[in-house]
Parts: sequence; C-alpha cells; structure tokens
Amino acid sequence: MHYPNPGDMMRRFPVKGFPFKGMKAFYQDFRLGIVGGGQLGRMLIQACPNYDVSTVVLDPSGVAPCHELASEFHQGSLTDYDTVYRFGKTVDMLTIEIENVNVAALYQLEKEGLPVYPQPRVIEIIQDKRVQKQFYRDNNIPTPDFVLVENRADILQHAAFLPAFNKLGKGGYDGGGVQALKSPEDIDKAFDAPGLLEKYIDFDREISVLAARNSKGEVAVFPAVECIFHPKHNLVDYLLSPSSASEEIQAKAEAIARRVLEKLEITGLLAVEMFITRSGEVLVNESAPRPHNSGHQTINANYTSQYEQHLRAILGLPLGSTAIKCPSAMVNVLGAEGCSGEVRYEGLEELLKIAGANLFLYGKKQTRPFRKMGHVTILDEDREKLIAKVEQVKKTIRAVV
Amino acid sequence: MHYPNPGDMMRRFPVKGFPFKGMKAFYQDFRLGIVGGGQLGRMLIQACPNYDVSTVVLDPSGVAPCHELASEFHQGSLTDYDTVYRFGKTVDMLTIEIENVNVAALYQLEKEGLPVYPQPRVIEIIQDKRVQKQFYRDNNIPTPDFVLVENRADILQHAAFLPAFNKLGKGGYDGGGVQALKSPEDIDKAFDAPGLLEKYIDFDREISVLAARNSKGEVAVFPAVECIFHPKHNLVDYLLSPSSASEEIQAKAEAIARRVLEKLEITGLLAVEMFITRSGEVLVNESAPRPHNSGHQTINANYTSQYEQHLRAILGLPLGSTAIKCPSAMVNVLGAEGCSGEVRYEGLEELLKIAGANLFLYGKKQTRPFRKMGHVTILDEDREKLIAKVEQVKKTIRAVV
Repeated sequence: MHYPNPGDMMRRFPVKGFPFKGMKAFYQDFRLGIVGGGQLGRMLIQACPNYDVSTVVLDPSGVAPCHELASEFHQGSLTDYDTVYRFGKTVDMLTIEIENVNVAALYQLEKEGLPVYPQPRVIEIIQDKRVQKQFYRDNNIPTPDFVLVENRADILQHAAFLPAFNKLGKGGYDGGGVQALKSPEDIDKAFDAPGLLEKYIDFDREISVLAARNSKGEVAVFPAVECIFHPKHNLVDYLLSPSSASEEIQAKAEAIARRVLEKLEITGLLAVEMFITRSGEVLVNESAPRPHNSGHQTINANYTSQYEQHLRAILGLPLGSTAIKCPSAMVNVLGAEGCSGEVRYEGLEELLKIAGANLFLYGKKQTRPFRKMGHVTILDEDREKLIAKVEQVKKTIRAVV
Repeated sequence: MHYPNPGDMMRRFPVKGFPFKGMKAFYQDFRLGIVGGGQLGRMLIQACPNYDVSTVVLDPSGVAPCHELASEFHQGSLTDYDTVYRFGKTVDMLTIEIENVNVAALYQLEKEGLPVYPQPRVIEIIQDKRVQKQFYRDNNIPTPDFVLVENRADILQHAAFLPAFNKLGKGGYDGGGVQALKSPEDIDKAFDAPGLLEKYIDFDREISVLAARNSKGEVAVFPAVECIFHPKHNLVDYLLSPSSASEEIQAKAEAIARRVLEKLEITGLLAVEMFITRSGEVLVNESAPRPHNSGHQTINANYTSQYEQHLRAILGLPLGSTAIKCPSAMVNVLGAEGCSGEVRYEGLEELLKIAGANLFLYGKKQTRPFRKMGHVTILDEDREKLIAKVEQVKKTIRAVV
C-alpha cells in the first residue's frame, strides 16, 4: 500500500477495549508486529482489519505470503538478534507465526516493556524439543516416555530404548528433524546432535487440540480435530473436525490441553498435538505456540477462527466461542511431485463446483514437491459425504508448473 | 506494503482456472481494480488473498477503509472521467463497490477490452432510479407503481398520486435522496430535479435477496434476509438471516431476484431489496450491483460469503453454495449521536463476551452521528436467543469521541 503522507500513519486507538500494558500512548495507531511472513501470518493479517489493527511483518523472503498483505513489510532474518530487535522497536506488540526466531531479542524487547505474546519464555520452552519434553514430565502432562541424548554415541548407550523416534532438540520443522530408529542397526543414521529418543507409540489416531489463553488467564479450548497423515511425506494429508474419538477421550484431551496452557502460562494460541493409544491413553506429542495448520478449518467451521482467537488472546480481550458450526475437513494443497518452478493451479473450476469447498491459496510464486501452497476447507453436515468430498478435492486441484 | 523491487510485482497467474477474456498475458500477476475504497471494498479485499488476487483501489479519501489493505492504493475522484480511465488502465479487471462512479470511463475501458464487472451498462441502469424503475416495468418485474417526474412543478401535476415517496433519479445514497410526500401540502419540500414518485406501500416487512451471476450465466441466490430499519434514521438497524417470511414468499422473492439478474445479464453480485405487502405481494424496491450491507453476515453464517461469491462471479468461476450454516443477525455500529471527531470504541469487552458475536470495524478514523463505523455479526441456532443477543449487542459497543 501507499501512504500519501506520514500523518496517515496515525490512527485513533480504541483504548477502552484494549486495556493491556505497554501501550505507548492513548489514541495512537496500533501496530502489531508479526515475526514470520508465511501463510499463518497471512491468515492472521486477514483477521486484523476487523479489530482495526495494523500489521507489520518481518520475513527473510521478499515474496513471502504476507508480503502484499501487511500494512508494512520488513525484509530480514528471523534469527538475527539485531534484525529482530530493531523490528520490535517499530511496533506496539509483537507476536510470532513460527517458533524459529531469535528469542534473546524477544527477551530484551520484553524487558524494555514491549508486550511479546507468546512470551519469550514460552517460545524458548517450545523451541527445544528437549526442554519441551522435560516441561511435560515436570508438570505431570502425559507424554511418550523419552530419554535425552547428546549425540550418536549417547544413543548407542540407550540401544535398549529402541524402537524409538529420534528427534533433534532444535531446528526440526514441518516433519524435519525426526526419524524412526527401529533397531540398533539404525543407530548409524541417528542425529549426531543434542536431541532425544522418544518411545515408539502404537497409536490409534493422532489429534490436535487448539486452545487460547488471554493475559487475564481465561482459557478457551477448541474441539479436538483428527489429523490424517500422508503415508509417505510426514505432513498432514487431511484433517477432520470434530475428531471421531469418543467423548470421553476428547474430554481427556481437552483437559490435557488446558493443563499445558495453564502450566505454560501462555498468552496466545497453543496447538497441542496428541496421540491416542489403542488402550485409550492420551499422550502429548508436541505443541506449537501460534496459529496452526490443524486449525485452518476454524475460519469457516467454528464460531471463532483460530486467527481471531489469537488476536483476542494477545490483545487481552475476552475469548470467542470455540463451538463448531458445521463438521469440516481440511486438505493441504501441496506442490505436485516432480514440479519445481513458477506455480500454476490445475483443477480450480472442478474444485469450486464442490458444494462447501473453500479455497485458500497462500500467494507463493514458486512451487516444489510437497510445498504447502494452499489448502481447501470442506464443509458438510454429513460425515460420510464430507470424507467423499475430501477424496474428490484431492483429485481436483494441483499445484504444477 | 512495500515492494523491494519492481520484479516483485510479477506473479504467476493460475491461468487454467480463470479462463476469462481480456487477460493481458499468461502467468502474470493478476490485479483486480476496485473503484471505491469503503467498507465493502475492505471486506472484498479480505477475500482476495485466498484466490491469489492482488487488489488496486481508487478512492478520493487518503484514509479510506481500504487504504491500508489494498496491494496498491490510488487517491482520486470516482466521478472524474480521466481519473477513473487512467486507474482502469493499471489493472487486469475492474469492479466497483459503489455505484456513483464515472460510467463513461468504464464504457471506454470496456471498449478497449478490459473486463468491467458489473458491466457499465448495468451500472448505468442502476445509477438512475428512473431508469432502474423503468427497467423493472419493462421486464415485468413487480415493483411499486410509480410516475417519472422532471421537477417540483411536475409533481404538482401528479398530486393525486400521493401519498408517495419522492426519489431523486441520481445522487441519492445511503438513505439520502428519498423522502415521503404524504399529502399535496408536502409538495413544496419535494425535490426540484428529475426523479420519480413511488406509490406508498403499506408493507409487512422488507427483505433483501443477494444473488450472483457469473459470466457463463450461472446464477446462485442467497436465502432472503430480513431488514429491520431504525425508526428514525432510514438505515438498516439490524438484519436477520434467514427471513421470517413464509417459504412461499421466500421462494417468490428468490424467483424475482433471479429474474432481475437474468434480465440485467449482470456479471457479479446483485442485492435486490424487496417489500412484502400485507397481502403477500413481493415488490422490488431497488437493487445494488455489488456486495451489500445486507450480506455482511454471509461471511460467518453462509457456506460462501458474498465477497467470495462476487469474486467467483467476476472471475468466471463456478459459484459457491449459498446455504446457511447458522441463523444470524447483523447490527451496524453507527457513530453515536452528538459525537463527531476521532473515534474511540466503548463496550468492546462486553461485546466480545457475547458468544457468537463477531466484530468488524471498518478502520474509519473519524466518527459522526450515524456514520457506519463497523458491524457485528451474531450467530445463534435459536432465533429467540439471537434476537435477545441483538438487543444486548446494541447496548454494548458505541462509537464515541
């Protein structure tokens, strides 16, 4: 966008409704800084105008999904102290849409009075899977059994713990940094860096529970959704809301999510991924302190979207109803196998003929195999029809070159 | 937003899905021009990223609701030929969010090959209430009886037609340009300009039917909504979806709306406001060829929002399902009486505690009495609770100074 003059940047701020600390002054334009400019930031930006909130985004890519949408876009590294610190000095509040950010800069900004939500303390716990797992254990939050390991040699000492998942402490995102070690013979491919071994769980299903907590301690939990993973690519293939788990299991999962939020004392949204074992145990796999891929369907299918809920939470406003308006599914639009380069979408017309299908493209110019290019939310009151539509959707839209 | 370099403006365009004429080339960034930068444009912009469409907005005000949201914002007059023409030359397709625009420029742009939706021909019919009424009569679309008048002296000749509404042909928007002439004594306050006298209708209720037609002639009609007007200010006070009219009346209204769209051969969205008389007649009051105040609730309450539907229609894509997910109401947030100046919102917290209430602020910095500053959509499965929540909402949020 374009500012005819600097005075335009001034905006009257609705003070009475947003009584959080750290506001620089009354009646000023409110600038929400978002560290990270991907699709989660993009959908968060789409929710901001309704609250009269301007968005300022930092991302290393000049063609990030948030690039055209943000009120202001800053190009720069998310992991560089100075870049993140300087970016934070231009906004009234800071949030994230990815965990892999420079936490030291966030701590310093928080110390200087900037509201940073989720808090740097929370991001730090989540960033390192070792710290995160230990946090669950320390707080009696059920999670698959694990041992911390420093390197490959250390894993050899724990060969009796296999079969297990070997996870890197830091740096693993979107299915990276995780591998299965089935037997001691697999150890020579184990990560030779600080990480953990997590007991292999023979789970019945995987669910995700999104919940938000605002700065006053109010917590609202979305009904659990069920994640169906792609058999090959370790990415969510599609997602069903609500989950087909029993009411008892769902209540247990929601109570666990609430416990994680309250023990973390997080301000903002948290996605808690969980395994349901065949014996009906509910175990926390991992959490993400931000809007999450498993909550896209809330835009169309719940009374409050995860993006609006995150805003309400960080602005210190009452949380919205998490109830479901209509059963839904979410299908990722992944880059087609064997296609890399400028993207083109096939099957858009066929897709849009499916009643209740809503398209969300992320504005990415380049596709590559299995890159998340967009998603489709599908609504149908009838569960069987819903699943049939999922299969139909998967056959229509394709991100090719 | 900020473009680090001009190359960023290039965007791969999903050609296979958007097979409309007038596209400048394959694989280019697609720029949708919106003439008008008010709240309707703002909500249209919020729908565009999901279709990877960039928005370019023209508005005379540098602080228009679209100002911060558009990919590009042009400040200029909507009624000046050169301004609109030059603006149109920068985009790949043109649409409007207000009817009061320079149609001659739109005709010229259309002649030069630019897709302009709704078509200038349609905008011209709607712009002049005299032409619009005559269109209904010529096409056997039921509408209150009327006579065209040239000036006040002419109205005197038709004194026997009173009581009637006196409407200006051109220039009346948002409740302006309309007044009641109850008896011949009122004629000295009649508009002394080309207009019409419309027979006073003792109506039971007023409803609005939104419908879209795409360039292939496909039509999709939203269920009728019921408009409850403020007793004093001639603006919608709140709106209920679906309407409480009988199924028979609703079917009649939807058939009439379909007929208006098909006779107009419009490409895009059309809002058709109708009176239901006490004897069960359905009469068209007037139409608007764009997203409409009476369709805001579709964002939360219908399978497809009016904004997405407008996009689908003008892009030549299949239309979405218009079905209702949940009964809803829409309350305008109007500037409080006696308040003019920089706006401040009171009661935001109380508002957001109401389950199912969704806030939409329009980003207007200045309030004045009865100015539309935002709206609240309220969802509730139970009609009585819904209406109770409307009254609750009306008591909470206030746009003051």
